[in-house]
Amino acid sequence: MSAFTRAWQEIAPIGRADSGGYLRYALTEPELTLRDWFRTQAARRDMRVTDDGNGNLFAWRGEPWAPGTVLTGSHFDSVPHGGGYDGPLGIVSAFLAADRIDASRQIGIAAFVEEEGGRFGVPCLGSRLLTGAIAPQQAAALTDRDGISFAEALGSVPAGADLAKIGNVAAFVELHVEQGRALDVPVGVASAIWPHGRWRMDFAGVGDHAGTTRMSDRRDPMLTFAFTVLAANKEARLSGAHATMGRVQVEPNATNAIPSLVRGWLDARAADTGTLDRLVDAVVRKATERADRDGTSLTVTPESVTAEVAFDEALGRQLSKVLGNAPILPTGAGHDAGVLSAHVPTAMLFVRNPTGVSHSPAEHATDEDCEAGIEALATVLAELT
Amino acid sequence: MSAFTRAWQEIAPIGRADSGGYLRYALTEPELTLRDWFRTQAARRDMRVTDDGNGNLFAWRGEPWAPGTVLTGSHFDSVPHGGGYDGPLGIVSAFLAADRIDASRQIGIAAFVEEEGGRFGVPCLGSRLLTGAIAPQQAAALTDRDGISFAEALGSVPAGADLAKIGNVAAFVELHVEQGRALDVPVGVASAIWPHGRWRMDFAGVGDHAGTTRMSDRRDPMLTFAFTVLAANKEARLSGAHATMGRVQVEPNATNAIPSLVRGWLDARAADTGTLDRLVDAVVRKATERADRDGTSLTVTPESVTAEVAFDEALGRQLSKVLGNAPILPTGAGHDAGVLSAHVPTAMLFVRNPTGVSHSPAEHATDEDCEAGIEALATVLAELT
Repeated sequence: MSAFTRAWQEIAPIGRADSGGYLRYALTEPELTLRDWFRTQAARRDMRVTDDGNGNLFAWRGEPWAPGTVLTGSHFDSVPHGGGYDGPLGIVSAFLAADRIDASRQIGIAAFVEEEGGRFGVPCLGSRLLTGAIAPQQAAALTDRDGISFAEALGSVPAGADLAKIGNVAAFVELHVEQGRALDVPVGVASAIWPHGRWRMDFAGVGDHAGTTRMSDRRDPMLTFAFTVLAANKEARLSGAHATMGRVQVEPNATNAIPSLVRGWLDARAADTGTLDRLVDAVVRKATERADRDGTSLTVTPESVTAEVAFDEALGRQLSKVLGNAPILPTGAGHDAGVLSAHVPTAMLFVRNPTGVSHSPAEHATDEDCEAGIEALATVLAELT
Repeated sequence: MSAFTRAWQEIAPIGRADSGGYLRYALTEPELTLRDWFRTQAARRDMRVTDDGNGNLFAWRGEPWAPGTVLTGSHFDSVPHGGGYDGPLGIVSAFLAADRIDASRQIGIAAFVEEEGGRFGVPCLGSRLLTGAIAPQQAAALTDRDGISFAEALGSVPAGADLAKIGNVAAFVELHVEQGRALDVPVGVASAIWPHGRWRMDFAGVGDHAGTTRMSDRRDPMLTFAFTVLAANKEARLSGAHATMGRVQVEPNATNAIPSLVRGWLDARAADTGTLDRLVDAVVRKATERADRDGTSLTVTPESVTAEVAFDEALGRQLSKVLGNAPILPTGAGHDAGVLSAHVPTAMLFVRNPTGVSHSPAEHATDEDCEAGIEALATVLAELT
């Protein structure tokens, strides 16, 4: 059995639900178990582990944050019932790639907290804190669905940015399973992350009895929400962008009650900022017009809107070359690498995803492609250190 | 302070949420507290309390289930964040009406369990069990959102029907707040309950990443659900019926994931069975056609479909007459009285609802109209015993 297969089998049962997908929310029991696994892996390799006070863990070969260190790694947390590869593959690969390069090379392996935003609502929360993209007090006050704050889950208010340490990092390289069907060889290099964001849309109406209220007397926000779901899909198709409304909360959410409030989230992404802005504007305009007709109201709150990220172009070309002209491709998915790229020369390696499915129990990569990814990451770490 | 105002103030804080509405789910702490209040009221009046083994409570003047007894009462449970009048008004009025009639009259006061179906999904669960409209084993296995079964909440498998006892009841009269805007005097008499039902609609698609999945590769069940919400509204308007989709569950319900499953409930009601059947058929047909286009699938499960209830016509005319020609009107809302009417001469009294709002914190009736309702119920109980 290969070292990869063995490691993968070790972590596979942690946080797996009956769906076959994972419930690895940040700082809950399964993710804490994966952090223990991280510490064990580091200890086996005599790597020192540090915590940055934001919930991010680091394992170091050499002094922590020593000038010239190359950082790699990813995250353990999952979306609800997501796949096992998105995140953990980058951490497992980092340890196994470290085993394949000279022990004198200065490297760090990161496990960033709350990359998916699945628990506290803001994706890349750990990397945002470390780089100052979100204020510690603001992050501290974020709450999960049970009302537990990030500060409570962490045990303290997060420490916030440390740009001096970040400035010592020579490069950050994140290996990740590819999430579309854009790669037809085992390994590719990222060029850019589409600009993307989340917009919370609160549709407010008047709660009433579903049986007795005349249709003409209703102010039903579910109608406005439903219209907006279809409008977002249509506008995204027309503009060559992506729009999804996959999350909804309803009050009171009873079969025999017209809702008083329907809260939906718009996830929108496009290849450039102009297209994204036009898409979101069009969806909000159509939703607002429909709210007028339904007698409801709409409040839109942007959450975690992220500008386009272009990874370091020279670095990307260099990595593609040492990997035998690996293809260079953009992605619609956000990553901690996108946050760090504002401060550090950053690159990403993608491992082929045969079906393109991600954020689902069906997410998969073959062992052979994962091995190719580890070998590529080792080559890249050796090249950069 | 009137006896009504005093009683109403006593129970007003029980189970009230920050919304101003009520969380009085069956057999949870607030509803159990209301049951204690019921026992106290009975004890003050030397009324014996019995439990039918189905979760329904009864207070008796005279022997329990004695032949010729007139039964009145309603339910304590609420829809989530519902109003305070729907249910409790019928029980409070029953005790206060009992105080106004001769102590020799044989009456029973009922508090039926789970009338709203807000916890276990089947409305009128208590009256259905008592009359055999649902099997005890089937009711026992119903679960709430936390996976607790009705049998667990009740402490045993329900006892089921007792038609011999029911057969001894001379008449059942339920007083209830009116739930539309159909009444412009303080008190009216019900003629019928529209046929109505709940249909669970499971829209299944393929869960995937919201950022990276091409629009043309998606099989997003939220689109099919949204289309169905709008179709149900349109079909109900065209047919002069009522249709509502006010409850939805999404898996995984994450902002950055295309759902794998969206489960919506259709609440549909019409003045006659033919119209209701045509309405539901049209909604299901349109939803199925849309599912084909979306690459999703639809499974429809009827839950608690109730045929038209016509209350005892002679009894309704008699009560209208003793109440000075009170108006006689139908309703779109289901009630325990509708279930009992298959076995016992049954009538309902409605108390005016000035705004027509119900199943919402804004549900209201004036103290003066409630007093008029109590007086009317006393008149009716005196007439029938």
